[in-house]
Amino acid sequence: MDTFLGHQTTVDFYGCKSDKISSCQFIEDTLLKAARILNLTVVNTTIHSFSPIGVSGVIVIEESHIAIHTWPEHNYIAIDFFTCNKSYNLKKGLEWLKEEFKAERLSQEVIKRGSLKNIEDFKV
Amino acid sequence: MDTFLGHQTTVDFYGCKSDKISSCQFIEDTLLKAARILNLTVVNTTIHSFSPIGVSGVIVIEESHIAIHTWPEHNYIAIDFFTCNKSYNLKKGLEWLKEEFKAERLSQEVIKRGSLKNIEDFKV
Repeated sequence: MDTFLGHQTTVDFYGCKSDKISSCQFIEDTLLKAARILNLTVVNTTIHSFSPIGVSGVIVIEESHIAIHTWPEHNYIAIDFFTCNKSYNLKKGLEWLKEEFKAERLSQEVIKRGSLKNIEDFKV
Repeated sequence: MDTFLGHQTTVDFYGCKSDKISSCQFIEDTLLKAARILNLTVVNTTIHSFSPIGVSGVIVIEESHIAIHTWPEHNYIAIDFFTCNKSYNLKKGLEWLKEEFKAERLSQEVIKRGSLKNIEDFKV
């Protein structure tokens, strides 16, 4: 039995192509396509391009959020997937993203959020 | 020596007051005030109210992002602070937020993001 409300997967992509990951439009398009592939429902999107370089973007989804930060000067991207819908195929989405970013390596970590025991214990 | 590009702190607040954390306006105001207290520079804000209940919000900051999801029916809030600026006083900000949310308990976890060794090894 699952005893948590949400799951968060933090993913680090290394060795990405700088020119791709410095483009605001590319990052926005890629995130929206990823959400479609993962069958997540987009609520709204905010993308910001930093000076001189780097993009930050967040998609709020019905199931929580996807957040991205790119460091083109380091060929590095950090992405988070926070969701309460556990049935989505994240592995497939990550393989697709790795290919899109031309990443050499990815590492990931899963964090469980919202212990149901604590929720019960601290119910107001 | 720090060997990571960013730091992410995930925080779970339990036992929060439902009426407070179901208000979109309250969540937006509180996040913006927290950013000020933490001396983080806000780039843009997106807040969404779910039907029938719950709020999701993300503030993109110069230093990365703050994301929040509230579950008023569970008196529970999840917040993430992702930043590359390590000099900010998160402890002070969290104490202030705990008071604002009237939370009974908070638990937190820190994740290091973007290994400088991997960045060097996979430089394109």
